[in-house]
Amino acid sequence: MITLRWSRGLQFEAIDDHKHKIVVDTHKEMGGLDQGFAPMDLLLVSLAGCMAMDIVSILQKKGGRIDEFMIEADGVRAEGHPHHYTKITVRIKCQGDYKREDLVRSFELSRDKYCSVTATLSAAPELEFII
Amino acid sequence: MITLRWSRGLQFEAIDDHKHKIVVDTHKEMGGLDQGFAPMDLLLVSLAGCMAMDIVSILQKKGGRIDEFMIEADGVRAEGHPHHYTKITVRIKCQGDYKREDLVRSFELSRDKYCSVTATLSAAPELEFII
Repeated sequence: MITLRWSRGLQFEAIDDHKHKIVVDTHKEMGGLDQGFAPMDLLLVSLAGCMAMDIVSILQKKGGRIDEFMIEADGVRAEGHPHHYTKITVRIKCQGDYKREDLVRSFELSRDKYCSVTATLSAAPELEFII
Repeated sequence: MITLRWSRGLQFEAIDDHKHKIVVDTHKEMGGLDQGFAPMDLLLVSLAGCMAMDIVSILQKKGGRIDEFMIEADGVRAEGHPHHYTKITVRIKCQGDYKREDLVRSFELSRDKYCSVTATLSAAPELEFII
């Protein structure tokens, strides 16, 4: 579970069950104080983080040595409200000593079998609201 | 755009276009160092943050005074891989001086019209991967 608590303006503090904290905010042109990640960027971090953990751990188990690993993620947003992502592009970059086919297979296993965030985005989970 | 860069173990640092940084990690029982938010929790923060910004701003525009505002979010995960969320529950708590109907209407406008994350989760965006 996560808890999000209003700080001021459009700024919030999120806390997880292990007491990690992050500031959620938005850009100044949106009325925010721009002191933390915006929600739609956090969605991309969630997706990139989930895939990155899978790929790094699987590729290492296959005997690959990773020197640098990076994921860039960006989305195309609908023009009208609610400006949701219609498409998300994930770009995976890996430097080290490994077989190209092992990297590709690690990525495929993440995309098709292990990545919880990819699967959640594809499955359109039921949303329940209590107010 | 966000960029996620591998630090060590299953720990990564994410950076947005405005140079905000967060640590992405996972629990020790999952092989992480537990020094930051896990990806599936970030998904909940993204959703809660997006709705919270809508509701707080709309309720204030309707003349409500908010003293405390909080969203708790939790998800039910599938038992087998990829352990995605099959259901997410969002619990909205607001204290202050406002009309109950205005809070409900602010929430409905977020859910049905403005919240980009809710809409992305419901729309199952196209995912493109470049490796």
